[in-house]
Amino acid sequence: MGEPVRIGLLGRGTVGGAFHDLVNERADAVEEAAGRRPEIVGVMRRSEGDFDRILDDSEVVVELIGGTDPARNYVLRALGAGRHVVTANKQLIAQFGDELFAAAREGGVQLRFEAAVAGVVPVIRVIQESLAATEITKVFGIVNGTTNFILTEMASTGAEYADALRRAQDLGYAEADPSDDVGGADAAAKMAILARLAFGTSVELADVAYDGITEIKPDDIAYAKELGLSLKLLGVAERRDGGISVRVFPCFLYSHHPLAPVEGPFNAVMVEAPAITEITMSGPGAGGVETASAVLGDVVSIVSGKAPVHAARRELEIVRDINSAFYLHLEVADRPGVLASVADVLGRNEVSVRSVVQRGLGNDARLVMVMHEGPESRFFSALDEIATLEFLRAQPRAIRVIEEEWV
Amino acid sequence: MGEPVRIGLLGRGTVGGAFHDLVNERADAVEEAAGRRPEIVGVMRRSEGDFDRILDDSEVVVELIGGTDPARNYVLRALGAGRHVVTANKQLIAQFGDELFAAAREGGVQLRFEAAVAGVVPVIRVIQESLAATEITKVFGIVNGTTNFILTEMASTGAEYADALRRAQDLGYAEADPSDDVGGADAAAKMAILARLAFGTSVELADVAYDGITEIKPDDIAYAKELGLSLKLLGVAERRDGGISVRVFPCFLYSHHPLAPVEGPFNAVMVEAPAITEITMSGPGAGGVETASAVLGDVVSIVSGKAPVHAARRELEIVRDINSAFYLHLEVADRPGVLASVADVLGRNEVSVRSVVQRGLGNDARLVMVMHEGPESRFFSALDEIATLEFLRAQPRAIRVIEEEWV
Repeated sequence: MGEPVRIGLLGRGTVGGAFHDLVNERADAVEEAAGRRPEIVGVMRRSEGDFDRILDDSEVVVELIGGTDPARNYVLRALGAGRHVVTANKQLIAQFGDELFAAAREGGVQLRFEAAVAGVVPVIRVIQESLAATEITKVFGIVNGTTNFILTEMASTGAEYADALRRAQDLGYAEADPSDDVGGADAAAKMAILARLAFGTSVELADVAYDGITEIKPDDIAYAKELGLSLKLLGVAERRDGGISVRVFPCFLYSHHPLAPVEGPFNAVMVEAPAITEITMSGPGAGGVETASAVLGDVVSIVSGKAPVHAARRELEIVRDINSAFYLHLEVADRPGVLASVADVLGRNEVSVRSVVQRGLGNDARLVMVMHEGPESRFFSALDEIATLEFLRAQPRAIRVIEEEWV
Repeated sequence: MGEPVRIGLLGRGTVGGAFHDLVNERADAVEEAAGRRPEIVGVMRRSEGDFDRILDDSEVVVELIGGTDPARNYVLRALGAGRHVVTANKQLIAQFGDELFAAAREGGVQLRFEAAVAGVVPVIRVIQESLAATEITKVFGIVNGTTNFILTEMASTGAEYADALRRAQDLGYAEADPSDDVGGADAAAKMAILARLAFGTSVELADVAYDGITEIKPDDIAYAKELGLSLKLLGVAERRDGGISVRVFPCFLYSHHPLAPVEGPFNAVMVEAPAITEITMSGPGAGGVETASAVLGDVVSIVSGKAPVHAARRELEIVRDINSAFYLHLEVADRPGVLASVADVLGRNEVSVRSVVQRGLGNDARLVMVMHEGPESRFFSALDEIATLEFLRAQPRAIRVIEEEWV
């Protein structure tokens, strides 16, 4: 067996602590699998530790500080000094991926980041290694566990968003300031990373259009249940019209969709390509020991083999008007001709209706419709027109629906 | 970019043909991902081709002949001559794994076989690489697409087994002689491979206890539906009492189980470990281009990196009496005291009942029960006793049920 793998650890929070423990616990197994024993030779915390000394002593730097400053600086220096780097930091990779990948190539070292997306679900490895020669057409899924927990809670208890968020915070699934998660920015960063790897093109954070779940009403979830739909915050990166589209949005799925049963803080990612049909992967999206486990897997890979290539291979255009199906919730006056007027607007905009549920409410009524897939621009111009109809009692609410058929 | 990767192809059937096409189609992508362009330098079919010449000309041998003879001989010679080998041949790996892995280690070359289990679902790579340092406790799933298609067909149409099999044959999901698939031997070979990799111990084909689906009645599926259960042919490899248990059996799952929605010819595998909770992976279990795609992924890995280590690391005992829950279907005389007698037998054997459905049928009745989990030996001794009860109108039918709770 070779000499120990000297690991410098940056950060000693929840994940850093779990990683430290896991290295000790699994040192024998790493030695068996990779031929060398891992050893943590230095730890840097916010207030203590000497980065230069850790750099001198280590062969692999594990960055678990989070955020981009000073993490970016440390990672660049480590790569520049010929150290392999493993990080769980999605913002770092999403915002500074090009710079960091270039530094790794120049330094002749590996930069691995399995834990940055979907926790322990090995989506990065599968896209980069199993599917390296595959023409991936679409990568999509549930990549934020906090919002999936909140939506699951709202669906199962009928809770308002704010109450479900509070429960997520009580259970440690949401942070005190949850805005990155619930607003969609966290999922957007992950989708930028997945799109980059799947399509071999540079994707900036600004290329990802995103919405969150803060405006979701229990009503929407309850009505959609009658139509056999469940609500998820979905990230979707796909090839469209010779370019790509990368988006994050709340979205209904029919119950036979493979992502529909993914509940609570779990993540799941699907990859589609003609040569593979589709692969679905799911598991816990976060958690200290799960994330640490993904980080340790990367360390084993570094010891065992060569780095995946990260150079952007082509420039693909970001496409914004794509086809979607929509759920539409309208509160209207309960009188004759209302449905006809709405149907007329949709028809003139070439939006086709798949199903309708109407419920009376005294003088008012609720009209819930699901459309067939079509260009979003057409649906939105219909929506603008519907919003001006005089019998409307509240702003219309529109949410995307995945309507693909599955085996 | 380096010189071409010279590939010798053994076998030119469905998968071999698809692989040949895929190499040509994706040569640019392989070159981008791995730095070298793949090139097929020789093809051997049943009746033509010179193995020695292919061996001389190639750097990687891709074995897609199937069966163990002459595949075993060719693969051993290739490894012995210092050639990397990629194969999709589960029987070869399951029956001669130890011999082949040793030959690969001695030759200092790689033997890869992602396509041998669960087609394009990257379960081999995830277990060997992502989870190399993880203490896996259980690997289980649906690893035979033919039987899953047949069971899905029986459930959705109420068809008899024989009719569903015929439909699978018409659609190309089952072979003319389906016995390896429907009898469970195919799944058993795959589970032997997964158990070996997950637990780092030698697992012989003879260590895997297996049942198939030929005795399943539409009745069982219909009754179980009332209890919220769906039927799958499951392979389960798990640590038990310091040893391991590896089995294949038809089994009911509650609808919230992650494997319950896996339908048609799809495969799905779950891996459990304390440090990862669980990962679920699913996708098409077979198909020419999907299998070829997994084979090509292995070729890319060979070009890009080092081989996983395959030495058996320990000897674990094969445990046979484990805990299971059971579904029990009894046809009985419809008269007082029948349920009490059955319950008495179960009680004396310490088998606990979870739910019961009883239906009258003229003078007879059907009694369908689901038990809580307990040692199989106790259930089977209860079953032996029940089989002798004078009011029984047919042989009792027992099928395992997975009753774990999920998020």
